[in-house]
Amino acid sequence: MAEKQRKAQGAVAGRFADGRVRAVIDAVLPVVDGGRFPAKRIAGETVRVEAHCFADGHDQLGVVLRWHEIDDPEAYEIEMTAQVNDLWTAEFTPPAPGRYRYTVMAWIDHFESWRHELGRRNDAGDIRIALRIGAGLIDAAAARATGNDAATLSSWSELLRSTADDTTGHADAAAMQSLALDPARALIARRHADRSLAASMSLELVADRKRAQFSSWYELFPRLAASENGPHGTFRDVQGRLPYLARMGFDVLYLPPIHPIGRINRKGANNALVPLPGDVGSPWAIGSAEGGHKDILPQLGTLADFKALLWAARELGIEIALDLAFQCAPDHPYVLAHPNWFKHRPDGSVQYAENPPKKYQDIYPLDFESTDWRGLWEELKGVMEYWVAQGVWVFRVDNPHTKAFAFWEWSIGEIKRATPEVIFLAEAFTRPKVMHRLAKLGFTQSYTYFTWRTTKSELVEYFTELGNGPGRDYFRPNVWPNTPDILPESLQSGLRSAFSGRLILAATLSGNYGIYGPAYELMESAPREPGSEEYRDSEKYQVRHWDFDRPDSLWPLIARLNRIRRDNVALQSDHTLRFWPIDNDQLIAYTKHDRAAGKIVLMIVNLDAHNTQSGWLDLDLEQLGMAPDRPFQVHDLLSNQRYQWRGPRNFVILDPRHVPAHVFRIRRHVRSEHDFDYFL
Amino acid sequence: MAEKQRKAQGAVAGRFADGRVRAVIDAVLPVVDGGRFPAKRIAGETVRVEAHCFADGHDQLGVVLRWHEIDDPEAYEIEMTAQVNDLWTAEFTPPAPGRYRYTVMAWIDHFESWRHELGRRNDAGDIRIALRIGAGLIDAAAARATGNDAATLSSWSELLRSTADDTTGHADAAAMQSLALDPARALIARRHADRSLAASMSLELVADRKRAQFSSWYELFPRLAASENGPHGTFRDVQGRLPYLARMGFDVLYLPPIHPIGRINRKGANNALVPLPGDVGSPWAIGSAEGGHKDILPQLGTLADFKALLWAARELGIEIALDLAFQCAPDHPYVLAHPNWFKHRPDGSVQYAENPPKKYQDIYPLDFESTDWRGLWEELKGVMEYWVAQGVWVFRVDNPHTKAFAFWEWSIGEIKRATPEVIFLAEAFTRPKVMHRLAKLGFTQSYTYFTWRTTKSELVEYFTELGNGPGRDYFRPNVWPNTPDILPESLQSGLRSAFSGRLILAATLSGNYGIYGPAYELMESAPREPGSEEYRDSEKYQVRHWDFDRPDSLWPLIARLNRIRRDNVALQSDHTLRFWPIDNDQLIAYTKHDRAAGKIVLMIVNLDAHNTQSGWLDLDLEQLGMAPDRPFQVHDLLSNQRYQWRGPRNFVILDPRHVPAHVFRIRRHVRSEHDFDYFL
Repeated sequence: MAEKQRKAQGAVAGRFADGRVRAVIDAVLPVVDGGRFPAKRIAGETVRVEAHCFADGHDQLGVVLRWHEIDDPEAYEIEMTAQVNDLWTAEFTPPAPGRYRYTVMAWIDHFESWRHELGRRNDAGDIRIALRIGAGLIDAAAARATGNDAATLSSWSELLRSTADDTTGHADAAAMQSLALDPARALIARRHADRSLAASMSLELVADRKRAQFSSWYELFPRLAASENGPHGTFRDVQGRLPYLARMGFDVLYLPPIHPIGRINRKGANNALVPLPGDVGSPWAIGSAEGGHKDILPQLGTLADFKALLWAARELGIEIALDLAFQCAPDHPYVLAHPNWFKHRPDGSVQYAENPPKKYQDIYPLDFESTDWRGLWEELKGVMEYWVAQGVWVFRVDNPHTKAFAFWEWSIGEIKRATPEVIFLAEAFTRPKVMHRLAKLGFTQSYTYFTWRTTKSELVEYFTELGNGPGRDYFRPNVWPNTPDILPESLQSGLRSAFSGRLILAATLSGNYGIYGPAYELMESAPREPGSEEYRDSEKYQVRHWDFDRPDSLWPLIARLNRIRRDNVALQSDHTLRFWPIDNDQLIAYTKHDRAAGKIVLMIVNLDAHNTQSGWLDLDLEQLGMAPDRPFQVHDLLSNQRYQWRGPRNFVILDPRHVPAHVFRIRRHVRSEHDFDYFL
Repeated sequence: MAEKQRKAQGAVAGRFADGRVRAVIDAVLPVVDGGRFPAKRIAGETVRVEAHCFADGHDQLGVVLRWHEIDDPEAYEIEMTAQVNDLWTAEFTPPAPGRYRYTVMAWIDHFESWRHELGRRNDAGDIRIALRIGAGLIDAAAARATGNDAATLSSWSELLRSTADDTTGHADAAAMQSLALDPARALIARRHADRSLAASMSLELVADRKRAQFSSWYELFPRLAASENGPHGTFRDVQGRLPYLARMGFDVLYLPPIHPIGRINRKGANNALVPLPGDVGSPWAIGSAEGGHKDILPQLGTLADFKALLWAARELGIEIALDLAFQCAPDHPYVLAHPNWFKHRPDGSVQYAENPPKKYQDIYPLDFESTDWRGLWEELKGVMEYWVAQGVWVFRVDNPHTKAFAFWEWSIGEIKRATPEVIFLAEAFTRPKVMHRLAKLGFTQSYTYFTWRTTKSELVEYFTELGNGPGRDYFRPNVWPNTPDILPESLQSGLRSAFSGRLILAATLSGNYGIYGPAYELMESAPREPGSEEYRDSEKYQVRHWDFDRPDSLWPLIARLNRIRRDNVALQSDHTLRFWPIDNDQLIAYTKHDRAAGKIVLMIVNLDAHNTQSGWLDLDLEQLGMAPDRPFQVHDLLSNQRYQWRGPRNFVILDPRHVPAHVFRIRRHVRSEHDFDYFL
């Protein structure tokens, strides 16, 4: 190989602006894509920050964590603690939802290094020299200090020097050492450490409110809410349903789009190309002469009605979530007002959505390559701002993966900068990397593949990945057993046990879950045609009437589950999920625990909707913090039955004709009296 | 929680300079710390680049990989291939050692999207419209093209338009489609794709020469090389030892520092504080009136002698590695010429190295916080440049973790920019994160903890981490069973089987390995005192004489092993290492394979130096690409014995009094004749 001589690049420069910075910050965690995106946490909950810091040689490091809300120039500072192997840790608690910056600063602390070495010296002559060296370091600290600190430090350094100079032998090694190692004065010197050669590394974090991580959603078409068969439901009708939702314990009521529905190319019942007179159309075909994304379908009521609903719901602890579906019916006002937000065909007509040979002529997609993309972005952000101003703080975003990613990163960032409490749920049932990108760039929650994960191995693999994979710091699952678009094959049997089982899995595997009702609690199970995942007579295209009071409704089970979720902190986040071996492929067992209180909830679900299944469960009692040899009680929060267990291996049997699951609270010390009761 | 209203940040800006860029590059691999450091590869070997690319919606992407040597403005470009799940891959081969930049560019290819959709259309009217749309896209491509391409594209678009306009019905749907889908013309259009809205992501890569990954080191104190007992060895004596080294098959001869040795505070034999007259001192106490880091200890010879050695070695395929030990004896010329490169004590004396209460008064460390750090950096780089100019392309760097990390990143970068073939081995036996940082910032190879990893579980865990951990892309192990500083406990038995076993492990577990000789092949095993890892009568402080021709020398085994390493590509890199179950904790089994040729080498080593051990080995034949039901031959390249095996489970027995290991080449088809012979 020929020896090459190349121009050496301009000597010492750039990254090495001050080569005397010897402290190294090799990594700061949590980090997402090297800092390209913020990690996500919950306001009011502790954030543990880890930093990998070291320097050459044997000097002592000073390492601090600084953090501040991003628009607040005032930073808090905490000393980080050295753990093993160059790991430094500190914790902070973002007090309120917002975007935070956290910065690790590390420097070589010559004063601490001096002190550390001094403690190991034993020769009086060496100590004498060390006192003089230390006096110089303390003088420098005094020069950086003011007031009392400066005076204390100056007199200390003077004392060290005079002691060092006193060769009459009055001060022995130990006395000199203890004078120099004085912890109280050292603390003052440390307050004025020399950070001029500090290294630093900054990252950002989004702190959301608790509901970002723990929420129970109910999706309802407002037009079906009427109490009698026939009329188009209104916001007032929805308001009338609120007590029902509150009784079930839901805290988010998600309404499909409430805007005027296009009349041009409107779809009929069961997605028919030609509507019958009176057909109401799909709420996702947004916009007509009656208005667009900031307007309300007159049949539902007025803005005042909507706000009344919003506040009535809030009284019951329920938030209204709106749908952001950024697409237009052919008669949406945008089509005339902003023709350049749409693609046009050579004949001048607007390009409708298509996936050849399929055509969606009732939908015009927005063109994110429009030369007026700035105008488009601002308008869509304006739609969000409008509804936020009305009091809507939760949005379910329709197919975000069919709109430009950069737009979401910008608009969600801007909305949350003004109102950090806003929650965005990404409805992207698409490829994994795309779903992850949406979560990274700002979506608060994400729909998942749970809807189609039905076997034990699928569930274990998927939820292990969700809990421990790279998405752990940014991807918050929201799991749904059904949606208006998806009646999964697992529910088409119509079996009560199938609906109960999937519901219990959703409500206990994930902090965030939701159902599309009343189709779910009334166990609607007929597909449009065999092999289809569409509902027959889908509410997407027609007004249906439901008997909410049917005696076989699942609502009592739902109410029980949501109550259990509220009462057990363990079920309110996803990071403690752990699966346990059970020797039957139809039984799945997992725990979640509440780290602070040390409380454990253990779920065992029978995945077979048809047959009783039994098996031996294996728990690692030591890992669960339990004595291996003492009996313990498992208290089924669903049935209120209690069992006494002993040892790691216990037998379980579940008949799906009753409730197909146990949701056990593990009580480590068996008590005779009931200390909690779900059956008031 | 109070609703906060904050100033929204300056609208559409910064990261969103052109919001129409819809293609997303979510990740490019290999990547080290988000691109902060380059990944490492070998020149002449294929680099597989992976990119995670997608866009919103259903448009087709164009994705290319561009790569170029960093100072060469001319880039090569390759189309990347879509695999499953938004993964795109391409390969390139850096032709020569150097630093390369590779960039992934992704854009929405409207022409390809049009073509893709056209293929799925079946309505003649729709196709007619599509032809007109396509004509527009092809016109745009023509405008970006020149010459023949432009002409071809223009006439194609004209043809598409006239076909679309011809409503006489001559052209049916299929004919129109085939005209529009013409692959030859599509290829031309693709050459002129519209990349104006491309996303891109760039990373860097260091391509080293093969020896960075595959090298066999022998460390020799030149002063002991004399053929008779007594005199101080010279470079000429070392030259006389070259045939011996070549016979053993080493390709790097590493010499401890060859510079003048300080006379002030020189250490005596066995690290005595006061030397006897005639004591030679430690070669790491560099510098005296005779010169510093660019000079040669006169007793070893002249620069001309050194260069003669260098070239004689090169003739035999052996490179000379020098030691870079950036520290000074008290009489080093730097101390007078550059007093501000050292720390001073209050009395004006230079601060020697210490680790209280220990003092190293023969060593002055350099002060990397010197105000003249620029001068210091330039001088030390000058030392490297000087020896590179003499023809030294391999350096073993002494304790790099006690010099500023920033200095190494800069100086190694500069040296390799001028001479990319240079190899730097980091001698940092320190904490894991520190060792990893040094590897990331530029060191080519790194010493490892192998020296102290002796049990099966330790070896499996450590080498699995080295091969598959985060260091995979930047940390190249160089494993040593001994060094002049480390006579590990495992060798202090002096047993031949212990020395053989550790040697075989080193030579087969890692592409890079080395021994400190002749202490190793002559099985020197006496520590300075019980419990010490220092050699008694260490060569660091005195001249010793060795009988290289002792009949019990391990040299024939070493020669055999190095021959096997040269002949078997499988052993020349680390990434295919895989351990296999064997039901005896004293036996360790692992394979390496040569992906290109499909050849497998299987090692089984008895870790018990005292006793015969046997066990059943379990191979997964399918994963090894072997038929589960056919017999196969294992050919021991150490003993030249052959065994016929069948099935995944086979019995192995190893008596440490003979060679304590098998190094099997697996021959999948049993042949009757010898197809290779190591016993010429």
